Amino acid sequence: MKYLYIFLPVSILLYKLNFFTLCFFVTILAVIPISSSICKYTDIFSEQLGDKVGGLLNATAGNIPELIISYFALKSGMFELVKSGLIGSIIGNLLLVEGISIFLGGLKYNEQKFSREFARTNFGLLFLALTGIIIASTYKRSFFNNGNFKEMSYGISIILLLVYFLGLIFSLITHRNLFIFTCKNEEEAIDKNVTGNRQLRFFLTLISFIFTFLFLIIEGNILVKLIEYISLSYGFSQNFLGIIIIPMVGNVAEYSTAILMALKNKINLCIEIAIGSGMQIALFAMPFLVLIGLTYGYTIDLSYNLYQITSLIIAIGLSFFVFQDGKTFWIEGAILLASYFIIALGYLFM
Amino acid sequence: MKYLYIFLPVSILLYKLNFFTLCFFVTILAVIPISSSICKYTDIFSEQLGDKVGGLLNATAGNIPELIISYFALKSGMFELVKSGLIGSIIGNLLLVEGISIFLGGLKYNEQKFSREFARTNFGLLFLALTGIIIASTYKRSFFNNGNFKEMSYGISIILLLVYFLGLIFSLITHRNLFIFTCKNEEEAIDKNVTGNRQLRFFLTLISFIFTFLFLIIEGNILVKLIEYISLSYGFSQNFLGIIIIPMVGNVAEYSTAILMALKNKINLCIEIAIGSGMQIALFAMPFLVLIGLTYGYTIDLSYNLYQITSLIIAIGLSFFVFQDGKTFWIEGAILLASYFIIALGYLFM
Amino acid sequence: MKYLYIFLPVSILLYKLNFFTLCFFVTILAVIPISSSICKYTDIFSEQLGDKVGGLLNATAGNIPELIISYFALKSGMFELVKSGLIGSIIGNLLLVEGISIFLGGLKYNEQKFSREFARTNFGLLFLALTGIIIASTYKRSFFNNGNFKEMSYGISIILLLVYFLGLIFSLITHRNLFIFTCKNEEEAIDKNVTGNRQLRFFLTLISFIFTFLFLIIEGNILVKLIEYISLSYGFSQNFLGIIIIPMVGNVAEYSTAILMALKNKINLCIEIAIGSGMQIALFAMPFLVLIGLTYGYTIDLSYNLYQITSLIIAIGLSFFVFQDGKTFWIEGAILLASYFIIALGYLFM
Repeated sequence: MKYLYIFLPVSILLYKLNFFTLCFFVTILAVIPISSSICKYTDIFSEQLGDKVGGLLNATAGNIPELIISYFALKSGMFELVKSGLIGSIIGNLLLVEGISIFLGGLKYNEQKFSREFARTNFGLLFLALTGIIIASTYKRSFFNNGNFKEMSYGISIILLLVYFLGLIFSLITHRNLFIFTCKNEEEAIDKNVTGNRQLRFFLTLISFIFTFLFLIIEGNILVKLIEYISLSYGFSQNFLGIIIIPMVGNVAEYSTAILMALKNKINLCIEIAIGSGMQIALFAMPFLVLIGLTYGYTIDLSYNLYQITSLIIAIGLSFFVFQDGKTFWIEGAILLASYFIIALGYLFM
Repeated sequence: MKYLYIFLPVSILLYKLNFFTLCFFVTILAVIPISSSICKYTDIFSEQLGDKVGGLLNATAGNIPELIISYFALKSGMFELVKSGLIGSIIGNLLLVEGISIFLGGLKYNEQKFSREFARTNFGLLFLALTGIIIASTYKRSFFNNGNFKEMSYGISIILLLVYFLGLIFSLITHRNLFIFTCKNEEEAIDKNVTGNRQLRFFLTLISFIFTFLFLIIEGNILVKLIEYISLSYGFSQNFLGIIIIPMVGNVAEYSTAILMALKNKINLCIEIAIGSGMQIALFAMPFLVLIGLTYGYTIDLSYNLYQITSLIIAIGLSFFVFQDGKTFWIEGAILLASYFIIALGYLFM
Repeated sequence: MKYLYIFLPVSILLYKLNFFTLCFFVTILAVIPISSSICKYTDIFSEQLGDKVGGLLNATAGNIPELIISYFALKSGMFELVKSGLIGSIIGNLLLVEGISIFLGGLKYNEQKFSREFARTNFGLLFLALTGIIIASTYKRSFFNNGNFKEMSYGISIILLLVYFLGLIFSLITHRNLFIFTCKNEEEAIDKNVTGNRQLRFFLTLISFIFTFLFLIIEGNILVKLIEYISLSYGFSQNFLGIIIIPMVGNVAEYSTAILMALKNKINLCIEIAIGSGMQIALFAMPFLVLIGLTYGYTIDLSYNLYQITSLIIAIGLSFFVFQDGKTFWIEGAILLASYFIIALGYLFM
């Protein structure tokens, strides 16, 4: 993963030289190691800050890359890109990550069992986020001449964020034992065992984190401008670009870890990561980006179109079906993947 | 609860003196003890009439206050009030009552377990009622120039009532053992142990019941007229008043009992009451009020608007999700309450 | 069942004499034994061809009668008939067959248990087919000016057929042990035990099969022309005729076997047949008939109207609810039947 950092200077160079189309692909490659590193540094901080504060940090930091890119996109007025990026991230986690993991894991093992306790609360929170989106969209559809759906969106977003923090209290404090917390980049977990000066290490990690964060801001800014360019030059819709690119750059770490876990028969962890990550986008990133509008003036609301809502219902419904019996077969992975491709087809033909 | 009877004469007096706005709130307070007493007297009758007839009486009598008030509202042509009152009662039972009970109970007990056998049939019947409402509404939406949806509503209502009575046969006769029957006002259950002349007691209860019923008719009549006044004077929609007031006056007894049960760790009973009460409104009160139109000419149909149907699907779906694993945590109560507030927000901004 | 073959010559005679209305009912009676025989012969072939090829044959041959009749109807341009026939077949299997079996079986036995392992994969495949239909229809609804929904339908159909074959590999090869394979006409199973010349028997079965297949083509052709006549003369819509007649002629064998099995307390087999049959129509017959359009020019797409989709979601949802707890009571059969009648009411009043 670290070797991909080579694309960081290349991307900036190409951007300065105005090779926008080539730069677009290079920038995507450059964001991948940054996104992966931020996840790694967060794990190290979490470990040092102790269980509760660390858990809180770890839970929310996974979405930093998506949030930064979405923030720049909002600033450029690319509302459709941000909204379809959020939907794409959730669907990607629930159908693509889970689908590939279960399919590949199932080819290796005849049957993979997991504990249903872990992900159940996250499904509950996902259902609540879905409720918020459906109610906001139905409200807009039913009373489209009525100008209150901005207030409606703000109100629902505040409720969702509130329950998100209640969910953190539940999983970090009152019902800790029901959850597993692990480094999302388990392949890098060996790093942690390095002995040595703790304070020095903390300081070095902080420096590294600040630099990575600066890289992310630079690249995020470039990426959003390139998406705008690609969209205008090649006639791709913001919807299509959003549903594909935002999830890709934001979740690569989760994607690769989940598949590795499935191949090691740790399907528990793999489902935990996919559902947890989908839940955080729906219940934290989504309402958070809506509320940003209150302070800055550029805004999206919580309502989505019929095709997006239908996709979301299908993604949550199918992954809940697969989850429900506590074991997985390869055919269930195939069903999740097939439904992902069916939904993606619609965005392709849009 | 009994002290609230003081509001009965006050309400009538204020009505005669034309203090309508104040009278509105007093009347609501006056209906609460009446609604609670009717529930108590029904329990006493049930006990004396034996298992089967008593069970039948007990199951249907819980809805008497809502039915009386809805009847007067229908007579005054307030169709929207009645329809949104029915939806509000179901949502109130499934999200608000269950939500508060599970949340408060969960704060006291780390985990509350209940038997999944009990409420499962009631969920099946709720799903059937939902089917009837969705089909009637989809039919109306799909063929809105076609005048047959009145016949459609009558047909579906007859099927729903038929299955409601089949459900009573199932729970009272063929599969009695799967259900628990209890006084809905358990705090008043001590009354029952009073020894003495059985016949005299039955007679006295009958007299009390007749008086309470008369009070209900007087107050129901006043309440409907006041709602009309409030709606016109203050510009509240019938939808908003219906979704808030009808459930409040009809279900206060269930609300308070369910919460008390949850705090005593009797979450079984609490879920049984909430689901059972929601099912009775959906499968009995709703089609019954539609069929009343056949004899009297003033009528509502079974079709509801998109926002109401969406709310109903979410309420039934979320409470089924919480019910499914046979145990509850406080976060599940918070999820139910949050979804209630999200739905209520839409009615507020309507 | 065999005696019904007498209606075969009667139907042809009446058709030649132009007694169309009478002929219509006689033809339906004539198709029933043909449909049943094809199912029986397929079982015999399957047995002789060995586990894997036989299983494949058995799985797909159950839909031959529906496919032949749908093919002739497509050729005559009766697209609505074919589409509502497909929906009717799925709903008929999931609500009517399952409903009658569970209701009648439940009247005889207090509680019927079955293994949840068997039908679970079929439900997963059904949910995928539903995903395809919903996405195709939502796409059409959302972008109705956009001409790409033909390509969309073809793409989704190919994905569905692919997963159908993956499902066969799963159930016939990699996870054989999770499934039960049996003669769908168990009452005729004694035939199989006849000893004698294997090759002669195979040859005789082949001859019989070819003749039965020819009968099916003749009668299918007549039936489609009669439906057209009935539709024009009596003013019934293609939708109404499709939803009633196509399922009736295609699934009589499954219907009678399922009910017999339920009365013998073999509810496992009964649910397996109903769900499996519904899945095959949704995941094989439906996309197959869409793709036929690619070669012949007469075509249907995968999108359905709101009423049809709602019916389908209700049928799959309710039968999954009943299936989920691994046991059935008569009231659950009554709920399935009631929802079937509610849906049928809409087609009657259409």
